[in-house]
Amino acid sequence: MSGPFQRVAVIGLGLLGGSVSRAVLAHIPGAVTTGYDADPAVRARAREIGLATTIAETPGEAVREADLVVLCVPVGAMGAAGAAIAVDLPADAIVTDVGSSKASVVRALAEALPNHAVVPAHPVAGTEQSGPDSGFATLFHNRWCILTPPAKVDPDDVQRVSQFWEALGAKIEMMEAGHHDRVLAVTSHLPHLIAYTIVGTASDLEEVTQSEVIKYSAGGFRDFTRIAASDPTMWRDVFLSNRDAVLEMLQRFTEDLTELQKAIRKRDGDALFDQFTRTRAIRRSIIEQGQDDARPDFGRGDHNDKG
Amino acid sequence: MSGPFQRVAVIGLGLLGGSVSRAVLAHIPGAVTTGYDADPAVRARAREIGLATTIAETPGEAVREADLVVLCVPVGAMGAAGAAIAVDLPADAIVTDVGSSKASVVRALAEALPNHAVVPAHPVAGTEQSGPDSGFATLFHNRWCILTPPAKVDPDDVQRVSQFWEALGAKIEMMEAGHHDRVLAVTSHLPHLIAYTIVGTASDLEEVTQSEVIKYSAGGFRDFTRIAASDPTMWRDVFLSNRDAVLEMLQRFTEDLTELQKAIRKRDGDALFDQFTRTRAIRRSIIEQGQDDARPDFGRGDHNDKG
Repeated sequence: MSGPFQRVAVIGLGLLGGSVSRAVLAHIPGAVTTGYDADPAVRARAREIGLATTIAETPGEAVREADLVVLCVPVGAMGAAGAAIAVDLPADAIVTDVGSSKASVVRALAEALPNHAVVPAHPVAGTEQSGPDSGFATLFHNRWCILTPPAKVDPDDVQRVSQFWEALGAKIEMMEAGHHDRVLAVTSHLPHLIAYTIVGTASDLEEVTQSEVIKYSAGGFRDFTRIAASDPTMWRDVFLSNRDAVLEMLQRFTEDLTELQKAIRKRDGDALFDQFTRTRAIRRSIIEQGQDDARPDFGRGDHNDKG
Repeated sequence: MSGPFQRVAVIGLGLLGGSVSRAVLAHIPGAVTTGYDADPAVRARAREIGLATTIAETPGEAVREADLVVLCVPVGAMGAAGAAIAVDLPADAIVTDVGSSKASVVRALAEALPNHAVVPAHPVAGTEQSGPDSGFATLFHNRWCILTPPAKVDPDDVQRVSQFWEALGAKIEMMEAGHHDRVLAVTSHLPHLIAYTIVGTASDLEEVTQSEVIKYSAGGFRDFTRIAASDPTMWRDVFLSNRDAVLEMLQRFTEDLTELQKAIRKRDGDALFDQFTRTRAIRRSIIEQGQDDARPDFGRGDHNDKG
């Protein structure tokens, strides 16, 4: 088989699953989607808002006619989701996923689906929202999608999965799963861990009230609360599945933080100034490469004035 | 004297000073502004873009006719800026400022201007940009401005300065300077310190390249780079001047981070889930109280699709 996929099954109908289904319907001419979620309330809501062409009542029913299955469940549930579709999955169907850590997912899916082609993927895209209502067709536009295919997978299958994600608007990069996990530990997992921590720290203070924290959050804190509003189950699984790389990056972060702490304690203004100067260049590169919005304050000011 | 200020001198023409001058000209009918900056290149640029009614060549010249002076220099330079205007400052002129830490500024200005009314202020507003081109008239719209007047200041003077910041669009709150410094240590100073740290950590890795960090920054890292692009001199001064409160908040943050680190190491999924759940409520409150943009991903997606 070749050509674009035409019957795409989406397992898990949260932000990512909902966005995959909407993006397929919007971007792949003639394609249909079937959706399944373990939560009956999510299935009912998905039906109500027309999230997929069909909403199935079992994982098997969702994949029975599929030529591509996209697993959009938390990374800790990937193995079980693979096992739940194994019997009904057509022999020539291909499986991909959206998990934020990859080495553990590669292992879990190889075990659950030993006789099928699995091309693991991580579209580096998302928002702080979750649930079936949060998905949208343009989530993957201009975002990177990292594929981490095991060596034994047929290059033609990898090629077709690449074209699938490109059809949804993503740019493709290939990476070894272990390297992926170290890169994302620093660009995504550690930032989330730190954001969750500082928001927790701020809620526990006695001498500063929670209402003061909220009121004066525009000084920087509010940026952290956005990330710390992300889906708790998804992130629990990320930290458990990418444990070693996260702990290693955290160790380095702590060393660097201790150094700045010492500079403040010793009133070493030059050390602080030097550190604060070199971090500006990275922001510039991120904007130059189109990975963020160049408008000051993410354009919040514009929005406030309009609204 | 009473009524709104009509001749406002702005010392320091960066993001905050430029915004104050533009906001005065836009919002206070009949008012004129004089601007001064220690950097001749900034003065030249300020003249070019019409940042103030007049750009003066000395601090004394800037304040000679003023009924209000707004000091918009880094907090470490407040004392010197006060001393530089002391001789030329009219006896009935009032002084306010925009410093992000207050106890040290209150002390420095009391010493530099013992015979003048000083009503210290901190408008909790800003962007990651700096320099004379970054200011805009609506920066203070709907933002809190915290006044920390020493007990000896005439309540009428405090009242007039309140009305001034309100005229620029801000909402006023009164606070004791020491309490201000503890509140802002957690809502602003600690977030900046952490953002500067993690961006530094990411630049120093050997096994993950800088270009990979930039490429995959949409996973969370890019939010931190925005804050870490803020003005280095301003932030060096904030950490030196609010040293004790920052070190105390940092200590608490480190304890909380160590606890999460231990949960990851011990694979304690329940502890992680609990922590990640309680942080969502704070985000909700911040949005309900109009302190941030409710659009997913700060509305970046909207912008990408338009642009």
